[in-house]
Amino acid sequence: MERKHHRPIDYLHNSINKVILIKVKRNRLFRGVLGGFDEHLNLYLEGTSQIFEYQDEDGNIREEHENLGSIVVRGDNVIFVNLANQE
Amino acid sequence: MERKHHRPIDYLHNSINKVILIKVKRNRLFRGVLGGFDEHLNLYLEGTSQIFEYQDEDGNIREEHENLGSIVVRGDNVIFVNLANQE
Amino acid sequence: MERKHHRPIDYLHNSINKVILIKVKRNRLFRGVLGGFDEHLNLYLEGTSQIFEYQDEDGNIREEHENLGSIVVRGDNVIFVNLANQE
Amino acid sequence: MERKHHRPIDYLHNSINKVILIKVKRNRLFRGVLGGFDEHLNLYLEGTSQIFEYQDEDGNIREEHENLGSIVVRGDNVIFVNLANQE
Amino acid sequence: MERKHHRPIDYLHNSINKVILIKVKRNRLFRGVLGGFDEHLNLYLEGTSQIFEYQDEDGNIREEHENLGSIVVRGDNVIFVNLANQE
Amino acid sequence: MERKHHRPIDYLHNSINKVILIKVKRNRLFRGVLGGFDEHLNLYLEGTSQIFEYQDEDGNIREEHENLGSIVVRGDNVIFVNLANQE
Amino acid sequence: MERKHHRPIDYLHNSINKVILIKVKRNRLFRGVLGGFDEHLNLYLEGTSQIFEYQDEDGNIREEHENLGSIVVRGDNVIFVNLANQE
Repeated sequence: MERKHHRPIDYLHNSINKVILIKVKRNRLFRGVLGGFDEHLNLYLEGTSQIFEYQDEDGNIREEHENLGSIVVRGDNVIFVNLANQE
Repeated sequence: MERKHHRPIDYLHNSINKVILIKVKRNRLFRGVLGGFDEHLNLYLEGTSQIFEYQDEDGNIREEHENLGSIVVRGDNVIFVNLANQE
Repeated sequence: MERKHHRPIDYLHNSINKVILIKVKRNRLFRGVLGGFDEHLNLYLEGTSQIFEYQDEDGNIREEHENLGSIVVRGDNVIFVNLANQE
Repeated sequence: MERKHHRPIDYLHNSINKVILIKVKRNRLFRGVLGGFDEHLNLYLEGTSQIFEYQDEDGNIREEHENLGSIVVRGDNVIFVNLANQE
Repeated sequence: MERKHHRPIDYLHNSINKVILIKVKRNRLFRGVLGGFDEHLNLYLEGTSQIFEYQDEDGNIREEHENLGSIVVRGDNVIFVNLANQE
Repeated sequence: MERKHHRPIDYLHNSINKVILIKVKRNRLFRGVLGGFDEHLNLYLEGTSQIFEYQDEDGNIREEHENLGSIVVRGDNVIFVNLANQE
Repeated sequence: MERKHHRPIDYLHNSINKVILIKVKRNRLFRGVLGGFDEHLNLYLEGTSQIFEYQDEDGNIREEHENLGSIVVRGDNVIFVNLANQE
C-alpha cells in the first residue's frame, strides 16, 4: 500500500467546498463548508454553525447551533480540523 | 460549482466598508465597519461597539453596547471574524 | 464613498500627539498621548494614567486613576487601541 | 553501538502509515495512522480516535473513544508523539 | 508643537543610566537603573529592587522591597516600562 | 580553569545515547535515552518513561512510571533538560 | 560616569563560570554556575539546585534545595536572570 508522503496542510485541498468540523481552543466547535485555507491554518468557512454541546434534563447530550454564515478563523486558535469523508 | 481557491484573509476584502463582527479572546465581541486589515488579522474598525451579552431577570438573553468609535484590534486576539453578508 | 484601503497600523498616525485609550490584557486600561508606535503595536505614551474601574457603595461605576507619566507598552499585551476622535 | 544523530522530526518517517499516539495540550489524546507531518509537527492522521480516560465505579481506569476519521492537528498543540514500535 | 515620530523603543535611550520602573506579567514590579535594552525589550537593570505592594492592618498600601542587584529581564515578560522623568 | 563558551544546546551532544530527564510544562517529567534534538529543543527519546510523583499514606514521596517507548517531544513544552552525568 | 550602551544579553558574559540565580515562570528558582547562553536566553547551568521557599511552623521563610547537576533551561521560561556580583 505505497503512498506518497504529503504535508498535513495539503490534505485540506480535498475538503475544499465540503463540510468540515473545526475544533478550536476554549471549547469551540465549528461546522462549515471549507472555502479557503493557508499555511497558518487560517480558515475561511461558509454556512458556518458554531456548535454547543450540553446535557438535557434526562442526561442526553444535545447540540445547539448558532448560525454564523461566513467566517475567517485565525489559525492559531485551531486544535484540529476534521476533514470531510473522502468517498 | 467550480471556484478559485483563495487565502482566507482575501475574503475580508469584500467586507471593507461593511459591518462585521469580531469574536476576540477573553469573551469580547466587537461590531464595526471594517476599514482595514493586514495579514496578521490586525483590524481597523470604525463606529465600533463592544457587545456584552447577559441574561435579564426573566432569563432572556440581552445585549448591552459600549460605543468605542474607531479602534485598531491587535490580530493575535482574534478568534474569528464574521463577514458581512454578501448580497 | 470610495476610500483607499490602509493597513490598520497606519490609522495610528492620525492619533500622534492626541489622547488615545489602550485596552491591555489582564484588564488594564491606559489613557495617554500617543508619542510613537511601531508595527508590533509597541506604543509610547506620555501623560499616561492607568484607569481602574470599580462600583461604589451606591452601585455606580467609578474610575480611579494612577498617573504613570511616560511609558512604553510592549505590543503583545495590547488588545485594542481606541483612536482619538478625528474632527 | 555507534549511531548517527538525527533531528527529532526525522524519526516520524518510520511511523508513516503506522498507528501513533499524540498527546495534546488540554488533556487530549489521539490515536491514528500517521499520514503526514511537517517541521512544525503539524500532523495528518487517518482513522483517528480521540481517547478519554476515566475511572469507573470500581475505580478501574477505562477508556472511551470518539471516532474522528481523518484529522489535521495543528502542531503547536502537540506535547509529544508516541511513535509506533519499530519491529 | 511639531515633533518627529520615533519608534517606542527609541524613547528608552533617554532613560539609560536613570531609574525606571518595569511592570512585568504575573504582578511583578522592578525598579532599577537602566543599563541596556534591545528591540525585544530585553532589559539590563542595575541596583534593582523587586517591589511588593500590600495593605497593612490599618488599610494603608505599603511597599516591601527585595534587593536583586543586576538583572537581565527577558522582554516577553514586560507589560510596560515607566520611563524616567525627563527634566 | 579556562573553558570555551558554548551555546546551551551544544551541551546536549554529550548526552546522546545517555539517559536524561526532561521537565515539561504542566508538571510532566520524562526519563529516556536521548536519541536526537534540534535547536528548538525538540527531543527524540527512546525507552521513555513518564514519571508521576505522589505521596503515599505514610507521607513518603513515591514515583510511578508509565512506559512510553520512543517519543518526540515538541520543544516549546520543555522547561529544562537535566543532562546525563559526565564521568 | 560615561558608559557604553550594551545589549542586555551581553551582560551575561561577565557571569560565565560564576553562580547566578534564574527566576523562571511557574515559580521556579534555579541557582547554578553559568556555563553558556544564547540570544534566546537558553541557559546552560552546572551544579544547579532548584530552590523551593516555604514558611516553617514559626513563620520563618526557609529554603529547600533539590540538586539537579547540569541542566539546559529553555529561554522562553525565564523571567529574569540575577547576575553574579561584579567585584
